[in-house]
Amino acid sequence: MPERIVRHFQDELEQLKTRLLEMGGFAEDRVRASVQSLVSRDPDMVDRVLAGDGPINQLHIEIDNRCFPLLALHQPMAVDLRAIVSAVKINTDLERVGDLAINIAEAATRYLKHAPVKELIDIPRMATLAQTMLRDSLDAYVRRDIAMAETVLSEDDTLDALKTQVFRELLTYMLADPTKIEPALDLILISRHLERIGDHATNIAEDVIFMVTARDVRHHATDTGQPTRGSDRS
Amino acid sequence: MPERIVRHFQDELEQLKTRLLEMGGFAEDRVRASVQSLVSRDPDMVDRVLAGDGPINQLHIEIDNRCFPLLALHQPMAVDLRAIVSAVKINTDLERVGDLAINIAEAATRYLKHAPVKELIDIPRMATLAQTMLRDSLDAYVRRDIAMAETVLSEDDTLDALKTQVFRELLTYMLADPTKIEPALDLILISRHLERIGDHATNIAEDVIFMVTARDVRHHATDTGQPTRGSDRS
Repeated sequence: MPERIVRHFQDELEQLKTRLLEMGGFAEDRVRASVQSLVSRDPDMVDRVLAGDGPINQLHIEIDNRCFPLLALHQPMAVDLRAIVSAVKINTDLERVGDLAINIAEAATRYLKHAPVKELIDIPRMATLAQTMLRDSLDAYVRRDIAMAETVLSEDDTLDALKTQVFRELLTYMLADPTKIEPALDLILISRHLERIGDHATNIAEDVIFMVTARDVRHHATDTGQPTRGSDRS
Repeated sequence: MPERIVRHFQDELEQLKTRLLEMGGFAEDRVRASVQSLVSRDPDMVDRVLAGDGPINQLHIEIDNRCFPLLALHQPMAVDLRAIVSAVKINTDLERVGDLAINIAEAATRYLKHAPVKELIDIPRMATLAQTMLRDSLDAYVRRDIAMAETVLSEDDTLDALKTQVFRELLTYMLADPTKIEPALDLILISRHLERIGDHATNIAEDVIFMVTARDVRHHATDTGQPTRGSDRS
């Protein structure tokens, strides 16, 4: 390939990375805002989250529109090919994170109609961890950094443990006081939305490891019949 | 491109479709078995679901391994390029459906430790609908059939309505009888896993429309701030 075209291709790849980081930043902000609006019991902030998914959705389309020409026109090989296909998948993951911020805000809208079930401690902790995982997974993508991707995979175990703790605690509240059943259910749903945000960061981290090494880490436990993620409540 | 290579490429594309259909069949069977094991209160059947994700995980890796060489060696254009990138994404969706069957079986394990909350009617109905959506979305992919893909998008509204109905009914049971809180929670989780299976079928259907038309239907409501899917409990 002529050097000029190679340089153009590398420039395009750099721009793609920049756009993905930008989209990741938006997604992270929306997760933070959705949980912040819940903790501070601020209905206006909830409404802003509900109304604010335009920029992510526009970036989602723009990033896909960058990836397909890169694949079609440049015939990339090996790690560059995997980087672009990963970008398509990461783009999908980030868009879903944006949807989950909306789901959190919808649950917050309902939750704020009730008296608080309890002081919220573990849910903000889950939100902070999910945001860190998102940021780390995207940094790992941009730097092609396997060690950082592996950090994300281990953080997911912590997030799952927090989700289980939140569930057990809220179940106790529900059993003790039926008026808490409905709002506690919304907190359980929110903890699960946060867990799914962590799952998306995990997907991105697994894509990074595949992109760099062409080694598939997604089914290291296939033969035992144990799922490697998404395990539920246990 | 020489005709022999074009024919080889088309053969490979056909094999890719066959493999995706096979994986879709596995995913559908596992969803059916997980809900059947719940309805018939059959712990052995639950255990078979928990132990049986090997074939899907193997196909997941095999399908990715088919897609990357197709992209690298054949420089496909336009609809063929979109078909292969869609295959990578559909492959991910189907693998997640397999994970969700495990999540359903995990919740069923816990549910079977309690007396039944009620006769299960809407949850099997949700399972049947989710399976239909999966099958239709894959048929739409193989036939490049937009009308069928649009059917899947409308079926998703029915699935969401069923999920809301399941939730309201179970909430009533929980409020009336605290001993039902814990098992009812597992039924709510199961209904949400089924909803997510429908979301994966919806993702596939949206990919089909994009593949055939290069038109993005994912954010037709961007400017209103309303999400186009994944809306929660309302």
